[in-house]
Amino acid sequence: MIINNQKFRTIWPNDGMAAGSRSVSIIDQTKLPHAFKIVEIINMSQMIVAIKTMQVRGAPLIGAAAAYGMALAMQDNCSEEHLQLSAKQLTQSRPTAVNLRWAVERMKQLLLPTPVELRLEAAWEEAAKICDEDVLLNQAIGQHGLNLIQRLHSQDLNKQHNRQLNILTHCNAGWLATVDFGTALAPIYAAYDAGVDVHVWVDETRPRNQGASLTAWELAQHGVPHTVISDNAGGHLMQHGQVDMVIVGADRVTSTGDVCNKIGTYLKALAAFDNHVPFYAAVPSPTIDWTMLNGVQEIEIEERDGREVAWVTGMLASGEVTEVNILPANTKVANPAFDVTPARLVTGIITEHGVFSPNQLRDILK
Amino acid sequence: MIINNQKFRTIWPNDGMAAGSRSVSIIDQTKLPHAFKIVEIINMSQMIVAIKTMQVRGAPLIGAAAAYGMALAMQDNCSEEHLQLSAKQLTQSRPTAVNLRWAVERMKQLLLPTPVELRLEAAWEEAAKICDEDVLLNQAIGQHGLNLIQRLHSQDLNKQHNRQLNILTHCNAGWLATVDFGTALAPIYAAYDAGVDVHVWVDETRPRNQGASLTAWELAQHGVPHTVISDNAGGHLMQHGQVDMVIVGADRVTSTGDVCNKIGTYLKALAAFDNHVPFYAAVPSPTIDWTMLNGVQEIEIEERDGREVAWVTGMLASGEVTEVNILPANTKVANPAFDVTPARLVTGIITEHGVFSPNQLRDILK
Repeated sequence: MIINNQKFRTIWPNDGMAAGSRSVSIIDQTKLPHAFKIVEIINMSQMIVAIKTMQVRGAPLIGAAAAYGMALAMQDNCSEEHLQLSAKQLTQSRPTAVNLRWAVERMKQLLLPTPVELRLEAAWEEAAKICDEDVLLNQAIGQHGLNLIQRLHSQDLNKQHNRQLNILTHCNAGWLATVDFGTALAPIYAAYDAGVDVHVWVDETRPRNQGASLTAWELAQHGVPHTVISDNAGGHLMQHGQVDMVIVGADRVTSTGDVCNKIGTYLKALAAFDNHVPFYAAVPSPTIDWTMLNGVQEIEIEERDGREVAWVTGMLASGEVTEVNILPANTKVANPAFDVTPARLVTGIITEHGVFSPNQLRDILK
Repeated sequence: MIINNQKFRTIWPNDGMAAGSRSVSIIDQTKLPHAFKIVEIINMSQMIVAIKTMQVRGAPLIGAAAAYGMALAMQDNCSEEHLQLSAKQLTQSRPTAVNLRWAVERMKQLLLPTPVELRLEAAWEEAAKICDEDVLLNQAIGQHGLNLIQRLHSQDLNKQHNRQLNILTHCNAGWLATVDFGTALAPIYAAYDAGVDVHVWVDETRPRNQGASLTAWELAQHGVPHTVISDNAGGHLMQHGQVDMVIVGADRVTSTGDVCNKIGTYLKALAAFDNHVPFYAAVPSPTIDWTMLNGVQEIEIEERDGREVAWVTGMLASGEVTEVNILPANTKVANPAFDVTPARLVTGIITEHGVFSPNQLRDILK
């Protein structure tokens, strides 16, 4: 991704330093869209804080961050005991995203049989490999999604429909949610770059406003036409033919095709189904949890601090970034962070291996 | 409604003054929940501004405000020309709510055949009558809704279910949206007063946050247990059995039972239907538009200023009330204010005449 004419990933090691004192840089996503700030992470505890406070967020990026968290942990102490403890602490930093568990597990499986004196260098190498793989996966997702969009767009032209293809997305599953390119937004960037006339409806995505603050920001950086709407508006737009397709990311997809994603995704999937609008989740295959059959029953949903609903961060007319409380004093708040869209509402899962209907998802394993 | 131990309606004429210089007081709802401020309206233009800027809002209250707007217009000039012009201007102040048109039409029909010299007094009397009728309608809605809630609650007890009955509501169709008692909240207040163990899930209701700022505030004044959630959360709660019933208000209901209400209502209705949760709209019968058969096709949906999405009003930690911008600079916004829930998703319409399924709504006319 290009930001202000400079090429960026969302996370990178500061390679100039000696292996024992390396740090990792991240973009502080809690500061966007009002400020573009890079933060240096020097140990595992700081990485856990960055994950918990959502300075880094998005399932694939959390996986990459956790992998680097393991490398930072090895920098501190390469013993098996510390390795196991670090893996456990990182896994527990956020409960819902499968990539986090997947990345930590992969690091653990590599490092445990590695001689102690080689673990540190191996950890840095493997974390970098996880990042590079994420980039390749997302580029492949972009290509498969592009084919889908081009097919839909040419069908639309035949129907003498509005020539602009309107895609609705929820939350941020873009460049910022991954190491680069994004998942849900990868096909949109690919379509835009291929000259397809796309326009994106960006759900605000309360309570943390990742759509309004992150998706709108990164689409603007790339020049993709988009309009922000409240989370409430999508159903109405679909009823009136103003949405041709929904693409979201996911924090976990079950082997049966249930899609766990940011809270509110289920409501958009219901509206898409009710209005015959195709609904896709775009995910790299590590996001698929092959052990799960029933997402609504089995996936643990993170309940986050009610403060996220009560306090809204934004910029005063003066330019100062601050937060305001929108609730009466002492109001009780519930804040589930994700929901599960049952496979029956999902048209397809866009992966690096191609596009699969939920009931064909297991073909990936063949 | 009791606020700080004092009995209030949402709108009242200041009767102490001479008929030619009367004013109307309203509660400025744009200042809640952070401040309780009464505003004095001295002419029709001010009333139109109050309606447009949503100092008064809620379909029944807009009707009452428009009726007083006509009285204020007569204070200025009782000619037929001025009467017709005022009626037109008031009707156009907000397009979606049927009560506004209904109240203005009723005032017009009464005043046109009235001799010019009697019009002013007649207008004040009729506006007061419209207010008193609204209060009686809402009390009746409360009683019919109470029966429904009590039946549901006793069924729940039989099922050894959680004893607390959880009702989800969207936007504010409470005391503040009417002259008194509310529509959607009238049954909830009645149930609470009758000793039913109710708990209300309050949708935040972006972009204007009427749930978070108004519904939470008035439920707290009455002591009704409630929890604020983001608009995105309701579907997830329904999937997990945490919602027993949905009650919303409406700005317009077609004769076929399509419910036009605050944007996002349709998404909650879809989720309720998908999870076998009963979905009710509570409305006084003037909210029913007998001329309309297809709400999605026929009802004009107000598109409001995108600024409502971009700027969020709240209280700084210092106690100062201000607004912050949550969007990147120059972001395009769409802001449809209402949507239409098709009758097939509606369990029933609670009116002052009783509870009707959508296909029986026309029985009211018999």
